[in-house]
Amino acid sequence: MKTEFKTKIQSIIDNKTKPLGSLGVLETIALQLAVIQNTDKPKVDAPFHTVFAGDHGICSQNVNAFPQEVSAQMVGNFLNQGAAINAFCDVQLIAMQVVNMGVKHFDENITHKMLINKPIAKGTEDFSQTQAMTEEQCKKALNIGHKLISLQIKEGANLISLGEMGIGNTTTAAALMAKITDLDVEQCTGMGTGSDAQGIKRKNEVIKQALVLHAEAKTGIEILQCLGGFEIAGMVGAILCCYENNTPVMIDGFIASAAALVAMQMQPESKQNMIFAHCSNENGHKKMLDFMQVTPLLDLGLRLGEGTGAVLAIPIVQSAASFLNNMASFDDAQVSNKDA
Amino acid sequence: MKTEFKTKIQSIIDNKTKPLGSLGVLETIALQLAVIQNTDKPKVDAPFHTVFAGDHGICSQNVNAFPQEVSAQMVGNFLNQGAAINAFCDVQLIAMQVVNMGVKHFDENITHKMLINKPIAKGTEDFSQTQAMTEEQCKKALNIGHKLISLQIKEGANLISLGEMGIGNTTTAAALMAKITDLDVEQCTGMGTGSDAQGIKRKNEVIKQALVLHAEAKTGIEILQCLGGFEIAGMVGAILCCYENNTPVMIDGFIASAAALVAMQMQPESKQNMIFAHCSNENGHKKMLDFMQVTPLLDLGLRLGEGTGAVLAIPIVQSAASFLNNMASFDDAQVSNKDA
Repeated sequence: MKTEFKTKIQSIIDNKTKPLGSLGVLETIALQLAVIQNTDKPKVDAPFHTVFAGDHGICSQNVNAFPQEVSAQMVGNFLNQGAAINAFCDVQLIAMQVVNMGVKHFDENITHKMLINKPIAKGTEDFSQTQAMTEEQCKKALNIGHKLISLQIKEGANLISLGEMGIGNTTTAAALMAKITDLDVEQCTGMGTGSDAQGIKRKNEVIKQALVLHAEAKTGIEILQCLGGFEIAGMVGAILCCYENNTPVMIDGFIASAAALVAMQMQPESKQNMIFAHCSNENGHKKMLDFMQVTPLLDLGLRLGEGTGAVLAIPIVQSAASFLNNMASFDDAQVSNKDA
Repeated sequence: MKTEFKTKIQSIIDNKTKPLGSLGVLETIALQLAVIQNTDKPKVDAPFHTVFAGDHGICSQNVNAFPQEVSAQMVGNFLNQGAAINAFCDVQLIAMQVVNMGVKHFDENITHKMLINKPIAKGTEDFSQTQAMTEEQCKKALNIGHKLISLQIKEGANLISLGEMGIGNTTTAAALMAKITDLDVEQCTGMGTGSDAQGIKRKNEVIKQALVLHAEAKTGIEILQCLGGFEIAGMVGAILCCYENNTPVMIDGFIASAAALVAMQMQPESKQNMIFAHCSNENGHKKMLDFMQVTPLLDLGLRLGEGTGAVLAIPIVQSAASFLNNMASFDDAQVSNKDA
């Protein structure tokens, strides 16, 4: 049935007024969108961007270049429209929300139309010493991500885009990657947002320590609980929600891809809903993408997070849907085909 | 003066609330836009796309997979909103025009609000036998491109995007490339929009023949006249107009890049206004880009022309301008920097 449907869509694509295959990756995306939404007229005209923010206990191991206060300051910056992600969403008039999943220094009395205040705790625990979250906290974080995205889909969003903010979360993402992929820790760590060689060495040490400590963690959710972050768990919940609701989801850089990696552990089929947006400059990202056997749309040297790569790739996804919906076929347009 | 200005812009970029350099290529584009428009607040919110169309005498050498009638049919398809470029412009609400520079089978009585009818002749001559254009025709084609874009800039366009349609024009572009770069012809030719190995062999033969015939052509305009196409000359004129009017210009794939290559021969400084959008799947394109020492923004496997790659890259350019204009600095946002 699905094979038949795919063949039908591919035939529609092949009969558009263009040389066979000449829209490259956009043809793959058009087919993917049609399969996700189970229609030959997929719609991605209502994208919605969510930035999940959380702090990381691992910061007490001195693995990050920026002070932890920056997580809270950047959430404030998002709300004041001052960050890169605001500037990018503004170009495309994409609506966004920011979710405080547990930002240590964020003033919980702040209210704002863009802000969802759902802190689980004042940051995770230090995963090199203990589990990052309790089982209950992990499930709560997954639920929050799931529910918020479910709400957006109910309100009409048909393309979900995910980003994150959390000082220290490249270390967390690298730990998740090392655990799940079984690659050497050195293959998984990188500069993050400003580490040097010394910082990377420190990261490798604490991650190796953590992998010994959490050797018993096996399932996706156990790994997430032991080594993850609240904002990463939020993204995992969001991705699983997209899968359950036949909605495509834009996966940003290294941290968001780590969430995708966890989501695939929990629900392998969720991969079919994921559109990988950008290959980050972060060292381990390319290897993580290779492990998942996915190719991202963009390679612009970004290493910022916030979902900047995801938002930049949205017009490409929309253009893929647009050509499938709006281009004439050779017959419609009375254009001669190659073999005519 | 220019160095001082660049340093000032770079310092503004470096003080935005993000890790140093973390917006990758977008930082390069932001700087380029500022330099082109000579302002720290560049504007690219009014893009305009032009498709230049023309036919090629070289088609009589049997170098193309599609029949020459397709050039005229595709112009009709553009006017009926049925082509890929229409679908892509539609997503971003980008206005476009189509210029008939000399499409052999196009009915010149057709009028349409998107159409500029300025045919120079019913296609160029076969450049393997004689000069593709007369000197007068070549200058006329350059002028048409220049004037039409000048008009758009006067009417408010602040980002020019170029595309083309012309059966046989990958052969023309390959000939221009071989002549200007002095690379082996085999390095310059490829599948075009549907050739096979036999077709490529045929292309190589006719281009080699043409290079002997036009060995005397030396300057950019002489090379364009001997080996070019009307639509390529139109794009060259458009690019030179952008240079003279401090306007950035999006360069699409293989054919548009050949126009950029000719424009650089005629006015080397015009390079600073060019933003290369997409690395085409066409064999010679990567080598042509290397010769010009430029790196395109996208690599999506497109090989369609029409300016599809250029239009897909526009939101990236707009996002670069947006972060420069709208992002807060560390001071503005009271966000702690790495060394704070």
